[in-house]
Amino acid sequence: MAKIADRYFHTDPWKVIERGFNPAYARVSESVFALSNEALGVRGCFDEGGSVDSLRGAYVNGVYELEELPKSYRGIVDKTHFMIPAADWLDTRVSVDGETLDLGKVRFSGFSRELDMRAGTLTRRFVWHTESGKDLCLTFLRFVDMNHGERAYQRITFEALNFSGSVEFASGITFDVKHEGRNACFWEATRAELPADRGFICAIQARTRSSGQEVFTAAVVTGAGEGRANRGKKAVARDTTLELTKGTPLHIDKRAVILFNGTDGESLWESGQTALRETAAVSLDEALEAQKAYWGEHWRVSDVIIEPSGETGAADGEQQGVRFCSFQMAQTYNGGSVRHNIGAKGLTGEAYNGHAFWDTETCCLPFYLFTNPAAAKSLLIFRYNTLPQAIERAKALDCEGACYPVATLNGDEACNLWQHASLQFQPSTAVAYGIRNYTQVTGDTGFLWEYGAEMLLQIARFLKSRAAQNPHTGEYGYYGVMGPDEFHMMVHNNAYTNYMGKRSLEYAAETLLALQTEKPEIFARLREKTDLREGEIGLWREIAGRMALPVTEEGLFEQHDGYFNLPHIDIHAIPVAEFPLYDHWSYDRIYRTDMIKQPDVLMYLYLYGTSFSTAVKRVNYEFYEPRTIHESSLAPAIHSILAAELGKMEEAVSFFGYATRLDLDNYNRNTREGLHTTSIAMAWVNIVYGFAGLRSDGDLLRFAPRLPDRWSRLRFSLTYRDRVIKIEMTREGSRFALTEGEAVEALVYGRPAVIGKDGLFVPAE
Amino acid sequence: MAKIADRYFHTDPWKVIERGFNPAYARVSESVFALSNEALGVRGCFDEGGSVDSLRGAYVNGVYELEELPKSYRGIVDKTHFMIPAADWLDTRVSVDGETLDLGKVRFSGFSRELDMRAGTLTRRFVWHTESGKDLCLTFLRFVDMNHGERAYQRITFEALNFSGSVEFASGITFDVKHEGRNACFWEATRAELPADRGFICAIQARTRSSGQEVFTAAVVTGAGEGRANRGKKAVARDTTLELTKGTPLHIDKRAVILFNGTDGESLWESGQTALRETAAVSLDEALEAQKAYWGEHWRVSDVIIEPSGETGAADGEQQGVRFCSFQMAQTYNGGSVRHNIGAKGLTGEAYNGHAFWDTETCCLPFYLFTNPAAAKSLLIFRYNTLPQAIERAKALDCEGACYPVATLNGDEACNLWQHASLQFQPSTAVAYGIRNYTQVTGDTGFLWEYGAEMLLQIARFLKSRAAQNPHTGEYGYYGVMGPDEFHMMVHNNAYTNYMGKRSLEYAAETLLALQTEKPEIFARLREKTDLREGEIGLWREIAGRMALPVTEEGLFEQHDGYFNLPHIDIHAIPVAEFPLYDHWSYDRIYRTDMIKQPDVLMYLYLYGTSFSTAVKRVNYEFYEPRTIHESSLAPAIHSILAAELGKMEEAVSFFGYATRLDLDNYNRNTREGLHTTSIAMAWVNIVYGFAGLRSDGDLLRFAPRLPDRWSRLRFSLTYRDRVIKIEMTREGSRFALTEGEAVEALVYGRPAVIGKDGLFVPAE
Repeated sequence: MAKIADRYFHTDPWKVIERGFNPAYARVSESVFALSNEALGVRGCFDEGGSVDSLRGAYVNGVYELEELPKSYRGIVDKTHFMIPAADWLDTRVSVDGETLDLGKVRFSGFSRELDMRAGTLTRRFVWHTESGKDLCLTFLRFVDMNHGERAYQRITFEALNFSGSVEFASGITFDVKHEGRNACFWEATRAELPADRGFICAIQARTRSSGQEVFTAAVVTGAGEGRANRGKKAVARDTTLELTKGTPLHIDKRAVILFNGTDGESLWESGQTALRETAAVSLDEALEAQKAYWGEHWRVSDVIIEPSGETGAADGEQQGVRFCSFQMAQTYNGGSVRHNIGAKGLTGEAYNGHAFWDTETCCLPFYLFTNPAAAKSLLIFRYNTLPQAIERAKALDCEGACYPVATLNGDEACNLWQHASLQFQPSTAVAYGIRNYTQVTGDTGFLWEYGAEMLLQIARFLKSRAAQNPHTGEYGYYGVMGPDEFHMMVHNNAYTNYMGKRSLEYAAETLLALQTEKPEIFARLREKTDLREGEIGLWREIAGRMALPVTEEGLFEQHDGYFNLPHIDIHAIPVAEFPLYDHWSYDRIYRTDMIKQPDVLMYLYLYGTSFSTAVKRVNYEFYEPRTIHESSLAPAIHSILAAELGKMEEAVSFFGYATRLDLDNYNRNTREGLHTTSIAMAWVNIVYGFAGLRSDGDLLRFAPRLPDRWSRLRFSLTYRDRVIKIEMTREGSRFALTEGEAVEALVYGRPAVIGKDGLFVPAE
Repeated sequence: MAKIADRYFHTDPWKVIERGFNPAYARVSESVFALSNEALGVRGCFDEGGSVDSLRGAYVNGVYELEELPKSYRGIVDKTHFMIPAADWLDTRVSVDGETLDLGKVRFSGFSRELDMRAGTLTRRFVWHTESGKDLCLTFLRFVDMNHGERAYQRITFEALNFSGSVEFASGITFDVKHEGRNACFWEATRAELPADRGFICAIQARTRSSGQEVFTAAVVTGAGEGRANRGKKAVARDTTLELTKGTPLHIDKRAVILFNGTDGESLWESGQTALRETAAVSLDEALEAQKAYWGEHWRVSDVIIEPSGETGAADGEQQGVRFCSFQMAQTYNGGSVRHNIGAKGLTGEAYNGHAFWDTETCCLPFYLFTNPAAAKSLLIFRYNTLPQAIERAKALDCEGACYPVATLNGDEACNLWQHASLQFQPSTAVAYGIRNYTQVTGDTGFLWEYGAEMLLQIARFLKSRAAQNPHTGEYGYYGVMGPDEFHMMVHNNAYTNYMGKRSLEYAAETLLALQTEKPEIFARLREKTDLREGEIGLWREIAGRMALPVTEEGLFEQHDGYFNLPHIDIHAIPVAEFPLYDHWSYDRIYRTDMIKQPDVLMYLYLYGTSFSTAVKRVNYEFYEPRTIHESSLAPAIHSILAAELGKMEEAVSFFGYATRLDLDNYNRNTREGLHTTSIAMAWVNIVYGFAGLRSDGDLLRFAPRLPDRWSRLRFSLTYRDRVIKIEMTREGSRFALTEGEAVEALVYGRPAVIGKDGLFVPAE
């Protein structure tokens, strides 16, 4: 692996700290310091803007624009959608003696920035040495409200260190924001208000050009008087002069409201005004207290604590990394709305257009299943609500049933690369897997009957209609596909696709037959709604039963037909300068060797881990690992988990380091575009599945704790069917404590065990 | 094959005739009635324009515009070029009593249109019944000068049938012409002149927007007085009033000059004026006589005469068809300039952007080799002159040597579908094959040493650098390619690519070693120029010698790795309404069965026919033919040729009918976009290689005449190494007469024979 850490931030168990400002890292910092509360997101950009390199962006979940694409062949998308930045509610200007605050130009010292993961706040502080000789200490605090999706806060503290005098100050909201990649502003203001009699208040509403979405944004500012109204074409602001007294800090608090209604804009303005009033009724300090309480509760149930061996403190980076991951997951998505999903970069940048991929079910779902099951359910309801679009998509591909999109914000397929959108069925099998995983972990059969069964039915139909038979053996398989390993395209019988297809078909059949028995009235309704025909379920089982899955005598699965005959390439001989390969190699060149981008066979050996023996995992791991370049950021954690299971602890730890600090250490050199949100979700999975050996794909939870030498202790909690289980792993063994709920059976190191009120201790193996 | 004739034109051995005007066929007629002289082309559109459905287009060979494409992955073209229509020199307006001539609106009778293939003229005639009760017979004659590439002519004859009186008339030139597909005019006028003292003369010059090409167009009109100047933004014209006398026809002759200089526009205007003076010095009648002489000579040496069996006249359509093919080939390309190539649609429409494909070497070259060897050489010189771009293209694909473009007008790769541009190497191996074919047929080793060797060297380098090895057998092959059968993509060891690669490498090695011996000084120069390294040639031979070519015991080649395991589809069960599949099937769906678009294995069995036994051809033909849907228009002729060789005469004739009348009968229902110029070239090849059994890939010419039952006699001539050989096939046997040149050895039905002064008769077998 040619992945090398680029450590820039200071290590701290609860904070991410930048000391001194390095303009070359400006965008990386903006990504790492991004805040979100699922509904809103904002990059860690400077409130006052300026000439420093920046990807300025305040995002609203679900807000996107449409783009018509050139008409091409049938089944190739001709319309896509992409997330755009919404109103910049941090908009601030400060000047002293005619000199404007711009950290790209002015003289300053003592710069620091801190993300506090216990408070969900970002604080920036520095002393500005003006040309006129004044020293002004500025502190910018911001947070987005975890308790109220539409609220966000900014506090600016002015401390005149060596003078008393005036500062020109302006604060506002602007929709005059550009999508950087497309170099265009997609907003048109529809209404704005700067009421003369209600203090320092700004309000503006705007509509996107082609999707017609409307967003209301308003703010009330206290501590700066009333201000003079300053209205732009797509912006509202107020200007004022602040009088500072040496030694007396002045706080200016801005409380903002950002309200988005998908399609029905009737009363948005009124709703916005109401929300603004409600927000204004709570002080920033009160909101901050509530914010800390929210995060306190989060850490209480979801924290992962790593203690290093000896006194080296070697695990500090890992501790920070795993908390950063948990923090990002919780702030990106917490089940606030079933209209939201988890973009590959969360709400931290334009890259990937805000689209969600199959990462949601594959990387993120386990975190929510064991920390916030309601959020996990919401993610699956998102898929249920977008089932009609998946059915449309299957039709466009000349198939039956439902084909879930490779990339989407709203349920429509948004991927404009046909070789992905038309050939990858991971999203569909991932949804089926997610339903199964959710049902098994939560026991929520109500969801399965009401929502899951219908999705499974339509996914199974798709998988049936897309399957084809080998003319000689009669075995079924998928021809002309691209598996998770995106370095092989238009392949036949991709093992992952076939295996996941097989399991999805089986699970769909099993679920529908159970539904028929358990809830005949729901089954009857579903059969009516979907026109389920006699024999359909039987056919799914037949196809599943005859699914091709070529394997050698040693248990080595062939990734796809002919894979073993592909020219071999020594991936370690590829010069580091040629990564990422997509940027440096001719596009076609990545597709014709045995080099693998990310786990494919190993992926289903992980997802359905309890269905395969350790021996089979070993032979496949040892064959495929040296051929995998981990160009996908979700890959290393999968390898780490399997390595841990195989007792290859050194490899397991090595892969883990990458996952935990992927963005903190800018491993992929593209953190400046945004965080790898869904990939860093794998850091949590890596610990829990890798080092605690959790497996949740069987009937019972399984654990097989394996504490790496470098750690002396690992502690974390899991929520499981109304229980909270605390797990503490030490060199001696693992203690399972039940802090809420009833006793539960589990398998530890393969042996039955009960985690009851008195806890359970199992010596290390 | 779901190909059904849609016969509209009247059958005549020397003409294509339309009687009565059917607006629904307006565009088909425009394509079929298109004229060209290689340098210029013009669709058969109405001189006076009007509201009739029309794809108006007058083209100048080599004139194109550029388009930037969105940046994508490396090796995917980010700039393309496309042919645009140039000045409309036919521009004419006629009105009587305030009523404008517009065949979409006025009342008319006696409409006829005739393409005369002995004169290269298009004549349209009808009687216009004006609203004012006047009957005016109008005849429009046009031709483009086969003897002078820059000249074109129009004659309009007015006959007042029932009145004497005036007609308003305007004639001019306009660059205000739109590319229909892009709905844009790409011209900006740079100079225009309507000299007051030189009669009815218009001249205008214009430049394309982004490619910066300039075209001069001028015309002198006689028979209409001086006219009043009428200047538009991008157009010049003259208006006048014609006084007609009942019963006295009035001829108005327009002689146009269209001059194009690629990049150097310095003296274009002056050159244009000179050309205009020279053109004006020759009357239209004189030019027409010269035109007829040109075509007379063409038919003398290149005619193919088919006589039907019995008195059914069944062959009339075939006779017309094969002449139409020969006519199109000669008018589209005759070796006038090495800057020209043969677009897939010639100069008859915008479709395919005027691009030349590998069809040039595969379909068209044989026609020229045996009728106009100088033109064949020019086509190969085009490839030599664009070798630098092919070298650049290979670099963009991370390869060495030269990779010829899939689609091009100017030598740059213009295909914006990466799956074709990056995966298809047919153009490169076709150039190597063309060099070999040219050298073998003409014996022109001078060309081989000076041009061919260098191209072969660079092609071999490309083929070497792109080859890879099977890790188990060590065999070489091409991975991740698309063969001629474009219904399978990203395949490995495509038999066509491997076999053609092998033969190209062998021929390159053989040529360079011969050059070293024969012309050591040229070899030394070439080695210097290309930095030919020690051992390079040896490596080519090693790769060629170990090229994978999987074949069964029965001699059945597998089209690519795994082809035999693809799901089978009964192509005859596909509903006719689903053709063309590209329009009706989801794009990915065509790629995952054993259905074949066009010959792939059969293609090299045809191209290297003397290297394979009849038994091998039979087993492959019988396997692949039922799997081929002939979605490419060049496919049926290949199948016809092989069927004839295998004695399957009924199939051979059936496939042949399609090739000869592909556009005359609008088989593919898209002739309206333009002629399938390079595909109809295969009609000639079909007769000569199929029914006369010519094979030119061995050391001696081979013949194996097989006259279909439906014909009593087939006659044609071949030019071969300064000889003209006339061949006459009858039921009894074949007579070979030598009308020019020295005796020549050949193989007839596999047996040595000499075609000498006294001719040769070989009884039919």
